[in-house]
Amino acid sequence: MTQASDRSRRADAARERAAELDAALLVTNASDIAWLTGLHSSNAAVCVTSDQIVLSTDARYADAVEADAADQLRVGRAVVDEVLTNVTGPVAIDIDAVNVATLNALDDREVVQVEGLLRDARAVKSPTEIDALRQACQLSVDALEQLIGAFDPTASEVVIARQLELFMGSLGAQDRAFETIVASGPNSAVPHHSPTQRVIEAGDLLKIDFGAMVDAYHADCTRTFVFGSASGWQQEIHEIVDEAAASARAAVRPGIRASELDAIARDVIAQAGYAENFGHGLGHGVGMDIHEFPILTAAEPAELRTGMVITIEPGIYLPGRGGVRIEDTVLVTQTGCEVLTEFPRELQTIG
Amino acid sequence: MTQASDRSRRADAARERAAELDAALLVTNASDIAWLTGLHSSNAAVCVTSDQIVLSTDARYADAVEADAADQLRVGRAVVDEVLTNVTGPVAIDIDAVNVATLNALDDREVVQVEGLLRDARAVKSPTEIDALRQACQLSVDALEQLIGAFDPTASEVVIARQLELFMGSLGAQDRAFETIVASGPNSAVPHHSPTQRVIEAGDLLKIDFGAMVDAYHADCTRTFVFGSASGWQQEIHEIVDEAAASARAAVRPGIRASELDAIARDVIAQAGYAENFGHGLGHGVGMDIHEFPILTAAEPAELRTGMVITIEPGIYLPGRGGVRIEDTVLVTQTGCEVLTEFPRELQTIG
Repeated sequence: MTQASDRSRRADAARERAAELDAALLVTNASDIAWLTGLHSSNAAVCVTSDQIVLSTDARYADAVEADAADQLRVGRAVVDEVLTNVTGPVAIDIDAVNVATLNALDDREVVQVEGLLRDARAVKSPTEIDALRQACQLSVDALEQLIGAFDPTASEVVIARQLELFMGSLGAQDRAFETIVASGPNSAVPHHSPTQRVIEAGDLLKIDFGAMVDAYHADCTRTFVFGSASGWQQEIHEIVDEAAASARAAVRPGIRASELDAIARDVIAQAGYAENFGHGLGHGVGMDIHEFPILTAAEPAELRTGMVITIEPGIYLPGRGGVRIEDTVLVTQTGCEVLTEFPRELQTIG
Repeated sequence: MTQASDRSRRADAARERAAELDAALLVTNASDIAWLTGLHSSNAAVCVTSDQIVLSTDARYADAVEADAADQLRVGRAVVDEVLTNVTGPVAIDIDAVNVATLNALDDREVVQVEGLLRDARAVKSPTEIDALRQACQLSVDALEQLIGAFDPTASEVVIARQLELFMGSLGAQDRAFETIVASGPNSAVPHHSPTQRVIEAGDLLKIDFGAMVDAYHADCTRTFVFGSASGWQQEIHEIVDEAAASARAAVRPGIRASELDAIARDVIAQAGYAENFGHGLGHGVGMDIHEFPILTAAEPAELRTGMVITIEPGIYLPGRGGVRIEDTVLVTQTGCEVLTEFPRELQTIG
C-alpha cells in the first residue's frame, strides 16, 4: 500500500540516519521493518548503509517482499547474519528493540547503541500514512456509533468488546489496533482494565478504549458513557476530564513540547483537586505502532511537529467507584490540530 | 486463580533454578512473572534468590498484587532497580527476554546469561493449569461449531474471524489466544495469513487457526474446510495431513524427543511427495504463552514429559492454490496423549 515516493523518502531518511551515526543501521524491530520495506514478517532484519538497503527474511515471507522493498533481498533463517554479511564497520542498534542474544551475535563488531533507530523519521507522517490513520479513526468512531445504537445491556464487558471489534471488521478494519478495553462500574477506575464477564449495572460508568487497524495503521479513541442517569460525581469528573482534553487539544501546535502539553491537561485536573487520580501520561504518538514517539509525559522534552499524529487522553480514576477517560487521536497541523476521531464527548447515557 | 499449592510449587522451582545457576534470577518476561506471582503487569520485575522472592511493579498495578504473590513487594517505576536492591552476587538473565537497555543497567554486576529462566519449570503443567487449558480448548471448539452452524458465505475473512472471536467471548473466553487466522482459497496456502476482505468462493479451501484464552491460558486449534465440493487435490492433501497429524498424535509419549515427533509427521508428508510444502515445525508448547518450550522442530532434542501441553499441526501448502493444516492441542499423559481440542477432522463442507 506504500506509495513509491514514500518508500524512497523513507529509504533516504534511513540512509541519512546511518550517515549521521556513521554506522550501518541494523533494523530488527518489526514495525521499523514494515515502515521501511513494506514487509510484515516475524523473522526479518534490515541493514541500512549509505550505499544500500539489504533486507533478509525466511522462505515463508519471501513471496511477500515487494519489488521496491530494498536494494537487495537475502532469503534465509539467520536474518541478522544475512544482512550483515560484507558489513565491516560499526553497526548501530536500538537498545530497546535488540535483545541480549542478538547483541551476543555481534560480539566481534563495533556496536553503536542508540535509542530508536528510525524513531524521529517515523514520527512525522506522510500524506499516505495520514490517509490510513484517518480511515482507521473514522471507521473506529463509525463502529462505536453502531455499537451504541445496538447496545445490549445484558452483554458482558468481553462480549461488548468483541461486538465492537466485529463492527470494526464489518466496516473494513483489518483488525483491532489493540485489545479493546471495556470497563464498567468500578472496573472503569482501572486505567488499563482487561474486559471481564461483568455485566453493566444501573448507574455504572462504561469506559470504552478501542481502535481499528487499517493498512497497518492504528486508531486510538476512548469515550466514557453512563448506564442510566449520571450521578453528581460522575458528571463532575467527566466535565473536568472533558475540559482537560479540550485545553490540551486547543494547545496543540508545532513547537510545543510534549511535557508542556501534558502539563496543560494535568493542571486542569489538579486545579479541580484530582491530581492524584490522573496517574498516566497525557498521550503518545500513534502510527504503525500503537505507542510511538513522542510519548506525552511530564518528562518528555520533544517538540511536536506538523504531521505528527498523537493521542490526547486525560482521565480521572476513583478507585472502587469508577473512572472517566476521553481520548482522541489528533493530527498536528501547521496551525493547531485536526481531530481524527470526531465523536460526541458529552457524558452520553446508554442502554 | 492460581491455587496456593501451585504458587508455592512454582516459587520452589524458581528458587531451585536460582540455586542451580548460583545466581539471583532477574525475571522480566511478563508471562514468567504472571506464572510465578499471578500478576499481569506491563511494568514489573521479580528477583528470585534462595532466601526470597521480591516483586516490583508501579502504582498502577500495586492493587492487583495478591497477598501470596511474593515474599516482598516494592512499588516503584524502576522495577529492575527495585528488585535488585541489596542483591550483591551474580544475576541470571534470559538472553531472549532482556534487551540491551536493561543489560546496560546491570553493567556493574556479574551477569549469568541463560536461555529461559523458568522455561523447564513452566513446560510441565499443574492440574490447575491443565484445567484452564482444557476449558480454553473446549470453549474454542464449541465456538467453531457455532460458527460453522451459522456460517455466512458472504462474510469476508476478517468478518469470519471476528464472528468466531465473538462466539468465543460469548462462551466465556477472556480474549482470543492470538490473532485468528481465516484464510480462504489461495490465501490458505500462506501458513500465517492475516485475514483480508476476501470473500470465500466456490471450491475454496477455508483454513481457520484460532483459540480462546481462559484464565490467561491459550488454546490453539486449526481445521480446514471446503466451500462446496472438494476437488481431488484438496481431498488428497487433506488426507495426507490428517494421516501425518494422526501418526504424530499416536506417537506422543513421555520420553520421545521433539525432533522425533516432528520427523514422524514429516515423513508421512515426504513419502506422499510434499516434503517441500510443509515448511514449518510440527508444533510447540502452549500455556501462558501461545508459543512455549518445547518447540517441535527437527533441531529440538528436548524430550516430552507427562503434563506438557503441545500442539501437533502439520500442513501442506500449495502456493497459489491452497493449503491444509490440521492442528490440535494435546496433553502428554503417562501412556500417550489426550486431545484437548476434539473436533471432527475429516474435510467438512461448509456453506
